[in-house]
Amino acid sequence: MKTNRFFRISFSLVVLVIGCSFQLFAQQNEGGDISSILQVQQYDRAIHIMAMLLIGFGFLMVFVRKYGRSALTATFLLVSVSLPIYLSIKTLGIFEAKGEIEQFILAEFSAASLLIAAGAILGRIKIYQYIILGLLFVPFYILNELIVIDDYFQFVGKVADTGGSIVIHAFGALFGIAAAVSLTSKKDMETPIQSDATTDKYSVLGSMVLWVFWPSFCAALVPVADIPHTVVNVFIALCGSTIATYIASVSIRGKISIADIANAALAGGVAIGATCDFASHGQAMIIGAIAGTISIVGFAILQDRQQKFHKIVDTCGVSNLHGIPGIFGGLAAIVVVKDLDISAQLKGIAVTIVLAVVAGLITGKLISLFGKPKEIYNDFAEFHDAE
Amino acid sequence: MKTNRFFRISFSLVVLVIGCSFQLFAQQNEGGDISSILQVQQYDRAIHIMAMLLIGFGFLMVFVRKYGRSALTATFLLVSVSLPIYLSIKTLGIFEAKGEIEQFILAEFSAASLLIAAGAILGRIKIYQYIILGLLFVPFYILNELIVIDDYFQFVGKVADTGGSIVIHAFGALFGIAAAVSLTSKKDMETPIQSDATTDKYSVLGSMVLWVFWPSFCAALVPVADIPHTVVNVFIALCGSTIATYIASVSIRGKISIADIANAALAGGVAIGATCDFASHGQAMIIGAIAGTISIVGFAILQDRQQKFHKIVDTCGVSNLHGIPGIFGGLAAIVVVKDLDISAQLKGIAVTIVLAVVAGLITGKLISLFGKPKEIYNDFAEFHDAE
Amino acid sequence: MKTNRFFRISFSLVVLVIGCSFQLFAQQNEGGDISSILQVQQYDRAIHIMAMLLIGFGFLMVFVRKYGRSALTATFLLVSVSLPIYLSIKTLGIFEAKGEIEQFILAEFSAASLLIAAGAILGRIKIYQYIILGLLFVPFYILNELIVIDDYFQFVGKVADTGGSIVIHAFGALFGIAAAVSLTSKKDMETPIQSDATTDKYSVLGSMVLWVFWPSFCAALVPVADIPHTVVNVFIALCGSTIATYIASVSIRGKISIADIANAALAGGVAIGATCDFASHGQAMIIGAIAGTISIVGFAILQDRQQKFHKIVDTCGVSNLHGIPGIFGGLAAIVVVKDLDISAQLKGIAVTIVLAVVAGLITGKLISLFGKPKEIYNDFAEFHDAE
Repeated sequence: MKTNRFFRISFSLVVLVIGCSFQLFAQQNEGGDISSILQVQQYDRAIHIMAMLLIGFGFLMVFVRKYGRSALTATFLLVSVSLPIYLSIKTLGIFEAKGEIEQFILAEFSAASLLIAAGAILGRIKIYQYIILGLLFVPFYILNELIVIDDYFQFVGKVADTGGSIVIHAFGALFGIAAAVSLTSKKDMETPIQSDATTDKYSVLGSMVLWVFWPSFCAALVPVADIPHTVVNVFIALCGSTIATYIASVSIRGKISIADIANAALAGGVAIGATCDFASHGQAMIIGAIAGTISIVGFAILQDRQQKFHKIVDTCGVSNLHGIPGIFGGLAAIVVVKDLDISAQLKGIAVTIVLAVVAGLITGKLISLFGKPKEIYNDFAEFHDAE
Repeated sequence: MKTNRFFRISFSLVVLVIGCSFQLFAQQNEGGDISSILQVQQYDRAIHIMAMLLIGFGFLMVFVRKYGRSALTATFLLVSVSLPIYLSIKTLGIFEAKGEIEQFILAEFSAASLLIAAGAILGRIKIYQYIILGLLFVPFYILNELIVIDDYFQFVGKVADTGGSIVIHAFGALFGIAAAVSLTSKKDMETPIQSDATTDKYSVLGSMVLWVFWPSFCAALVPVADIPHTVVNVFIALCGSTIATYIASVSIRGKISIADIANAALAGGVAIGATCDFASHGQAMIIGAIAGTISIVGFAILQDRQQKFHKIVDTCGVSNLHGIPGIFGGLAAIVVVKDLDISAQLKGIAVTIVLAVVAGLITGKLISLFGKPKEIYNDFAEFHDAE
Repeated sequence: MKTNRFFRISFSLVVLVIGCSFQLFAQQNEGGDISSILQVQQYDRAIHIMAMLLIGFGFLMVFVRKYGRSALTATFLLVSVSLPIYLSIKTLGIFEAKGEIEQFILAEFSAASLLIAAGAILGRIKIYQYIILGLLFVPFYILNELIVIDDYFQFVGKVADTGGSIVIHAFGALFGIAAAVSLTSKKDMETPIQSDATTDKYSVLGSMVLWVFWPSFCAALVPVADIPHTVVNVFIALCGSTIATYIASVSIRGKISIADIANAALAGGVAIGATCDFASHGQAMIIGAIAGTISIVGFAILQDRQQKFHKIVDTCGVSNLHGIPGIFGGLAAIVVVKDLDISAQLKGIAVTIVLAVVAGLITGKLISLFGKPKEIYNDFAEFHDAE
């Protein structure tokens, strides 16, 4: 097989490049100015984030029908590819030097955004195409981070987005949806989406893992004195969206949908990201409750129409869980954060939307050049073991 | 449906009330006297406790037959409702101000006790009835905490119960069993309990999650210098009960019961709570071993008789895992803790028993007013997705 | 049954002995010289290791076919028996006094090595035989630790093995394989090994749990200033082996094997152990990638031949995941660590190999005296509940 040979060679190259650039990395960055104890505390949060990326997403993926093995393997590889690439790029010399753990947490953020993007096209590409996705995603993600968060070009101004509502969640979701444009076949449109998504009660466990560790995600790089208020805010926003999810699910569908619970209970975490260190606990509750409600409206009412209208399939419904609640969270800062530079906040959101969509369209097109399946994807073609 | 409308309205109110009271909360409580680094270390333990509440209990619930979706959703909602309510009540002004994370950990303790209580009546009430359970439980729990731990009325004296053997485990178990009096139908009595409980090997995973994080539960609010000794004690007590569980299970039943292992291995954690910061490691081992043995005797011999005698069904056997081992742990303090005020300890246990039973009877009666199922509960009536 | 009575009695004795020796333990060791905050940070890593031992291994065990209950119970008991025995032996007075958490982490290391050893003979012995395994393993493990790490006899010199590539992984694997010599029946040889190992996609979740917490394992006792560099190294080595595993699995088998992913993705963690605090990030990437590749070659090509040649069955393939990558990691130190005492490093590896094999042969022989199953093991004989 030609592609087979291709990716073996390309891969050996990737590993080499990464290995070498790490050598560079090793020479800088040794003694950060952050005291060791604080760095070790950051490390505990880095572990929590890693638990979200692999155990949380892993749980969601393992119960996917028909291509659970592919979804799991993709998750494992996307994380393993994006972390070293992110770290390597960040040592090219044009970026500010940071503590080693801080740098690593930023790399985890990019992996999280990448997994969200992959959620939109899950079950339609082959394993090596996920790797191409990772290779292309990370540079675009870093570019957006550079413009919106680091304000490298002094174009945007100071944006409130500590927990990444805008640059992690909305960016990842929009990137993924845009990539899906080139990766949705007619057959995909005809297959009912429910049969692909993880509608199973077991996926609630994955959701719970994400829920539990979410405060560490939002507070990962927050100064030590602000951590207590921030983490309690995130927990409260999650309580708010969980309660709202239940009410909205019953109100709209007549009965509870366990898939709604598994998904939208997390919307509060997505939305509180932008304001997690500024909001009062009451505001956190309200932001969470609104996000949960918006998310359920998306899943229960908009998803099918959206799909027909845009002619794309968003496998995991990332637009309803990460896209819209992420942008809502970014806008909520206008009400919540005192002394916010409102024009910077709006510019930051706009740049993220435009960049994510353009980058996603390009990436989707490039991936589709490596093959676009004619049949509905089934992992038997790629996996050796009996299911 | 009338109830349907009822709880939608009531819920909107609840969310509003919580949101508002949080506003209050936000104005106090900012700068605690505890240094930030220590608070962040407390936060790590708060995350471990949350992993127990959602991932540990979630694992136990997801493998429940016939109503796993209901059990999972109930767990998610009980946690999401009880945390903000606890925090809101604690800001009414009559309580001592505390650090934000400390307050949050106390809220987690109340959620843990509530989940234990819910374990006794699992699979017999509807989702919105669990919410009513949460709304009624938390104030009673706080009242008991106020009397027994804070000694607000200067009636009890100083009680040894750092890890909550008495006020968390025994209180929750007795509350749940008392609530079951009004919520056990004839049909429930006729259905063999085994088919409802999680007898599956997969539930051992939930048990292992609880086991692993238990030391953080007991040591959550222990002063930093005492944490090493406390957490090692808890691990040793858990080793003791796990070994004892195995020996007792084989001795009594002739063969190992995997359900016994899943349950009683945790009894050491329940029982060591009252003395976790005082016991020597040898005493911890012995307390754990006795608790494991007591618990197995309960599950293997007493449960069926109890059920027939009291005419109640205790779905998860909380009396054998949390009730009796909790009270045993409270009494063990009399032997273990030097300079213990024995009369205070006995008064604390007595107050907890009386308050839990009375509050549970009232709550069970009130919940049963909202509907008492005539059929064995099956979650198809409440859930939208195909199982 | 005679054996039944035997182990009940023997067990009561064990518990007593442990309980008593703990009394001793309690009198020493109180105020370590390590400050409390640092000890609590060590504790967080101790919890992560415990999550690996029970949740990680638990996940791998629960999906074992035919004897999942036995594998789970064995895991639970091996951990519960080895921790207190290790702690008890370490308080006999001939060892250097250490901080309580440090001592506990060393006990966890012995439990990890024991679980690896048990992996080689899984599914062929009865539950009480696992306990005998634990009772015999721990003293041998401590002897090796004493010689190689503590250099008690001033025979070896200073060995680089911070994360235990040699004394934990290689020792455990070789011990288990040697023990398997007396515990492999003809019937075991005839049964295809694939049907016993966890080839299921769900076992990837267990692998992910181990992956996430691995840095805490390697950095558990590293001085606080070296932790950031060490943990990032471990993550990078794991990324390297995960990518290499994928490439090697497809290259050798033509398709991806999900069992390969579940196993060999961890080989980077095994191999980086010896050099985790010395390697540069680039070296970590390369060590991880080589370890992953070696491991896949072992699983895909060597395992069947090895089995026929040595006439032993290595149930979980521990030689390919822990044995060979562990020794490779130990040897990699020769290249990576500046100022390494190379002769000490080689002596340390040699002593570990010899001691593990001799101890394993003795232990296997002794366990086989308590009964060697004639039939393929099936847990119905030992378990009470219906599967």
